[in-house]
Amino acid sequence: MAGNTFGNIYRLSSFGESHGEAIGGVIDGCPPNIELDLNVIQKELDRRKPGQSAIVTQRKENDEVEFLSGIFEGKTTGTPIGFIVRNTNQKSKDYSHIADTYRPSHADYVYEKKYGIRDYRGGGRSSARETVSRVVAGAIAKQIIPDIKINAFVSSVGDIFIDKPYQALDFSLTESNDVRCPDLATAEKMEAYIKEIRKEGDTVGGTITCVIQNVPVGLGEPVFDKLHAELGKAMLSINAVKGFEYGSGFCGAKMKGSEHNDLFNTDGSTKSNLSGGIQGGISNGMDIYFRVAFKPVATIMQEQETINSKGEVVKMQGKGRHDPCVVPRAVPIVEAMAAMVIVDFYLLSKVY
Amino acid sequence: MAGNTFGNIYRLSSFGESHGEAIGGVIDGCPPNIELDLNVIQKELDRRKPGQSAIVTQRKENDEVEFLSGIFEGKTTGTPIGFIVRNTNQKSKDYSHIADTYRPSHADYVYEKKYGIRDYRGGGRSSARETVSRVVAGAIAKQIIPDIKINAFVSSVGDIFIDKPYQALDFSLTESNDVRCPDLATAEKMEAYIKEIRKEGDTVGGTITCVIQNVPVGLGEPVFDKLHAELGKAMLSINAVKGFEYGSGFCGAKMKGSEHNDLFNTDGSTKSNLSGGIQGGISNGMDIYFRVAFKPVATIMQEQETINSKGEVVKMQGKGRHDPCVVPRAVPIVEAMAAMVIVDFYLLSKVY
Amino acid sequence: MAGNTFGNIYRLSSFGESHGEAIGGVIDGCPPNIELDLNVIQKELDRRKPGQSAIVTQRKENDEVEFLSGIFEGKTTGTPIGFIVRNTNQKSKDYSHIADTYRPSHADYVYEKKYGIRDYRGGGRSSARETVSRVVAGAIAKQIIPDIKINAFVSSVGDIFIDKPYQALDFSLTESNDVRCPDLATAEKMEAYIKEIRKEGDTVGGTITCVIQNVPVGLGEPVFDKLHAELGKAMLSINAVKGFEYGSGFCGAKMKGSEHNDLFNTDGSTKSNLSGGIQGGISNGMDIYFRVAFKPVATIMQEQETINSKGEVVKMQGKGRHDPCVVPRAVPIVEAMAAMVIVDFYLLSKVY
Amino acid sequence: MAGNTFGNIYRLSSFGESHGEAIGGVIDGCPPNIELDLNVIQKELDRRKPGQSAIVTQRKENDEVEFLSGIFEGKTTGTPIGFIVRNTNQKSKDYSHIADTYRPSHADYVYEKKYGIRDYRGGGRSSARETVSRVVAGAIAKQIIPDIKINAFVSSVGDIFIDKPYQALDFSLTESNDVRCPDLATAEKMEAYIKEIRKEGDTVGGTITCVIQNVPVGLGEPVFDKLHAELGKAMLSINAVKGFEYGSGFCGAKMKGSEHNDLFNTDGSTKSNLSGGIQGGISNGMDIYFRVAFKPVATIMQEQETINSKGEVVKMQGKGRHDPCVVPRAVPIVEAMAAMVIVDFYLLSKVY
Repeated sequence: MAGNTFGNIYRLSSFGESHGEAIGGVIDGCPPNIELDLNVIQKELDRRKPGQSAIVTQRKENDEVEFLSGIFEGKTTGTPIGFIVRNTNQKSKDYSHIADTYRPSHADYVYEKKYGIRDYRGGGRSSARETVSRVVAGAIAKQIIPDIKINAFVSSVGDIFIDKPYQALDFSLTESNDVRCPDLATAEKMEAYIKEIRKEGDTVGGTITCVIQNVPVGLGEPVFDKLHAELGKAMLSINAVKGFEYGSGFCGAKMKGSEHNDLFNTDGSTKSNLSGGIQGGISNGMDIYFRVAFKPVATIMQEQETINSKGEVVKMQGKGRHDPCVVPRAVPIVEAMAAMVIVDFYLLSKVY
Repeated sequence: MAGNTFGNIYRLSSFGESHGEAIGGVIDGCPPNIELDLNVIQKELDRRKPGQSAIVTQRKENDEVEFLSGIFEGKTTGTPIGFIVRNTNQKSKDYSHIADTYRPSHADYVYEKKYGIRDYRGGGRSSARETVSRVVAGAIAKQIIPDIKINAFVSSVGDIFIDKPYQALDFSLTESNDVRCPDLATAEKMEAYIKEIRKEGDTVGGTITCVIQNVPVGLGEPVFDKLHAELGKAMLSINAVKGFEYGSGFCGAKMKGSEHNDLFNTDGSTKSNLSGGIQGGISNGMDIYFRVAFKPVATIMQEQETINSKGEVVKMQGKGRHDPCVVPRAVPIVEAMAAMVIVDFYLLSKVY
Repeated sequence: MAGNTFGNIYRLSSFGESHGEAIGGVIDGCPPNIELDLNVIQKELDRRKPGQSAIVTQRKENDEVEFLSGIFEGKTTGTPIGFIVRNTNQKSKDYSHIADTYRPSHADYVYEKKYGIRDYRGGGRSSARETVSRVVAGAIAKQIIPDIKINAFVSSVGDIFIDKPYQALDFSLTESNDVRCPDLATAEKMEAYIKEIRKEGDTVGGTITCVIQNVPVGLGEPVFDKLHAELGKAMLSINAVKGFEYGSGFCGAKMKGSEHNDLFNTDGSTKSNLSGGIQGGISNGMDIYFRVAFKPVATIMQEQETINSKGEVVKMQGKGRHDPCVVPRAVPIVEAMAAMVIVDFYLLSKVY
Repeated sequence: MAGNTFGNIYRLSSFGESHGEAIGGVIDGCPPNIELDLNVIQKELDRRKPGQSAIVTQRKENDEVEFLSGIFEGKTTGTPIGFIVRNTNQKSKDYSHIADTYRPSHADYVYEKKYGIRDYRGGGRSSARETVSRVVAGAIAKQIIPDIKINAFVSSVGDIFIDKPYQALDFSLTESNDVRCPDLATAEKMEAYIKEIRKEGDTVGGTITCVIQNVPVGLGEPVFDKLHAELGKAMLSINAVKGFEYGSGFCGAKMKGSEHNDLFNTDGSTKSNLSGGIQGGISNGMDIYFRVAFKPVATIMQEQETINSKGEVVKMQGKGRHDPCVVPRAVPIVEAMAAMVIVDFYLLSKVY
């Protein structure tokens, strides 16, 4: 109810503030007898962490996950998996300047109004650092469904976008560059642009596209828990996300039925896939693909006017390192959330 | 778990197939002592029903809601509200031609594969007729929060769109025309276009924009149940929806932080509202606005090739009346789902 | 949250007041392709209804269930099953004398204080008539697991009790007498006693024992959703229930470990079964058995002093027919709730 | 779904095995701005821990709770409270003798059959050590509702029981003796008996009575989530519990309505309280009282025959220290679970 649990069968209950003792969670409903590769989990955390490349924040965080339960002799036991990631790099004094100030387009103001109290250090619970727990849970989810491939990548940064259908891309190139864009020419342009933005002390938004392959027919629970509705909620719950579309998306809203309908092949597959692999809220076996919009990060290295808790106008400016474009770092988060949604419906589909 | 319940505190459990006995539901968690205006509820149903204007399907349905419990002497009692709407107009023979055939871009195929059985009459549970229950529950939800104004309207049909910010519109004009577009010049173009589409036996998609005013600060439960994440899920659960964006949405993904940040006024309101009334997943008291993309309806009056359950190619063509553009009829559904989400968080916000 | 939904995978959302239009519910999560015997469902309703024998209330109710969805050509479709049972016999005028009065040991007072409004006719939502929905949902649940046998029977009325272990009973005799006691000599004594109580205008309590056979190993979800914890909650949610014990129960609390431990046979079954078929919250394949205590019905045909809503002392006396002992009529309700719990865990057990 | 989350508004998600790294949990839904006394929490853990007195297991455990989030400058923030208690005293080698053996009346066999794998060390997840998390969550819950008094005590051990109504007891004496029995003469007898049992290498069961005072009218959500149904589930979810009764309980099943009805005083209180403070599933402002039955602990220091995973008969005997009677140590657990249930409904009652 209070918003910190995700999933039904495969459930993550998450906790942790940016500058508290630790980020962590409890995963309940993980099937037993899954042989977990802990290195793979750590590798996903490394894909998310700050300081990993020249185009993201240079703040160093070394996110090491410690598992506390639910794993015995390398295998899951069916009991809840508790885990923590210590916040090793918190320097609380850095944040004293915002204790009493509401940063524009951050959650400071609404947390204060909603709860009457807030841990102001680094955004507290509203910090994207919270996504550490999601990445851990997603990395385990992926290992439950090894045959299903979840491929997220940066498809646009500012006005620069991949001008090809996803079928023309080689997903194995996503990790070959710092932007996580599998189209290398576009990646180069994006990288140059992000560096420029960084020099300005500014930030920029972008989009991530995610393609999920080898999904069995039948996942999703109409009418309210349609597969794409849960995917949409999952994506919209990630910090800075402003939009979600799947299949033909907003473009589909301009089309005619005669253009949009996906005609069948005799094996039940479809000739086109404007449906995005989902019909009536249920996977149809075709590729699922969707696109997620991220706004530019609110913390900029430029002076802005804002207010404090007394309603007085104050000037503020981000200090130290900043994150000119979080979209590359959000790629493993999008994959993690997608993996959790798919596993949840996959496990539920065994019931009937 | 099986997907037919929506909400946490204010919950709708819905049932009913297009051509079964009735559509209905149970609303649990409605506060007691709400004086219900049943005419208003019926009026909302009338806005949704087929046959109401020249540009929607001409199929006549007279959707009359019967309340079975939870209301005593005109007021809610705090006990569950059971209700049904009889399916008076079902002619099951009309659908015999699809008993064994999977219509393109419909849910026939996936229902058959998922459940191993399906009520093929009129789409069964996958029919948009299911939204009758949502409209009833939404119309009650609105009466719990009379001060909050929920204004949905058609903002585009095909390539025709309102070329103004929502602040320039007069929402009282939405119901003045069949398209439910408050910009009358645009409405006229849309109407003409839909009539053209109908003549072709084709269908067309569109978008609905929704603006919610007078929302108190503090609604929404981070981190997973962010207000916009629940709104997104709610919208994506409506038939034919392909995308959702709020505030700056997909446009925001192209912007810089220095352009995008909403600076504060001294009273906590913001000078711009690219955040769309929500920060960190919590309402900030500014207008909430979002946009929903609807694909064109799959049933067209043109011949299409498809397959039957034996995997044979067959030709099919929609019979009788069709719905060239469902977007106008979806306006009350968008409002109903938004109302349910807002009420749910509104009630929950009383806890703390 | 508001308490009218039961179950996780197999879920009943229930509605209806004693003297409203109808009692009913929505069953979500019923597996598809179950061939339902509707006569069996009706038969269970008949076992619950008033007026069925000489020792229960003589109020006539003819409870006919109407299914509205989720069943197609005699089989479940996997979509929600909506159903209603009309309240045909409500005479609202009969209840005017309690509109303003709180009956002792009824829920009148607490409903008034909690909700600030109440449908006073016949107890409204607090009436045991609500259990009609449970019996319908339970009768369907039983048909999902035909191999599992659920046998409830009256094991005591007042001080009269069956002085034999359940293994010495022939459950096929339960329905042979009005008390639903499979030990015929005891049944006779109980029946005579209930008739005596009725003459006095008084009521009496009793216990029901339930034995569930052929339960597969592995049902139940520790640590909080232990099989017996859910059974206990299910039973305690039935009107007038004051206690629940399973296996050795309260007697077990007096025993030593050396007496109480169930030693294994080599096939994993146990030599004794003081555990009651459940260990660590998980079924072990042995018979599950438990006992449920019902208080005497509060409505008696004797004059009592009570208070009205102004806090004034008033005299009241039950009018018309009364129910000297509801325990026999509660037998199908106990079975229904047990069936719902078992089906819920049975379906969930397919996940892992 | 997988059973490791308790509560709706105030929710504990728990994890941890007896001999894993740590026991812990996430508490979601704790209201903000509660000033927490961490010493009180630790004190509750000390009441639960082994080795605290002469009559419980002498195994030393030093359970220190570490809070990881959700508390800022001594106050709750409304964000989830993550916490862990390290397992400092696990000697895994001690348990090698049961790796392949199923102990009688333990959960070894059913865990193996259900999950196909089990952490056999000390019972793993089925160990009562799991209740550490409950005690932490309960100790916080108590601080949310300081005016409500929750008093649990040992009311019987074997055949020895307190022969007085609870109103004749002085709850301040409960902690004055190792048995946690407020009737000192009875406490002495119980203590002597437990010492005798310990010498025999045997164990014994008992009951705990709990009295909750100052509960506001209106807690509980009929029809399924009645206050006593949730209390019953909470208690039955504790290790070794075999039964639950409230108010008149099983005795009430022998009574007549004319004896059992609680007549009103003019202020809405009742002259007697056989209802146990709950009517129709809703608190009525009178004392809530209930009784919980605990079986004798299965681990005894006597030789027993049992089977191993190959179905062979083997002899086994508990090693080292044992717990002749866990009932005294279960007192804080009963209180913790009661506190969680009461807080959950208390918070929910603010909604309407």
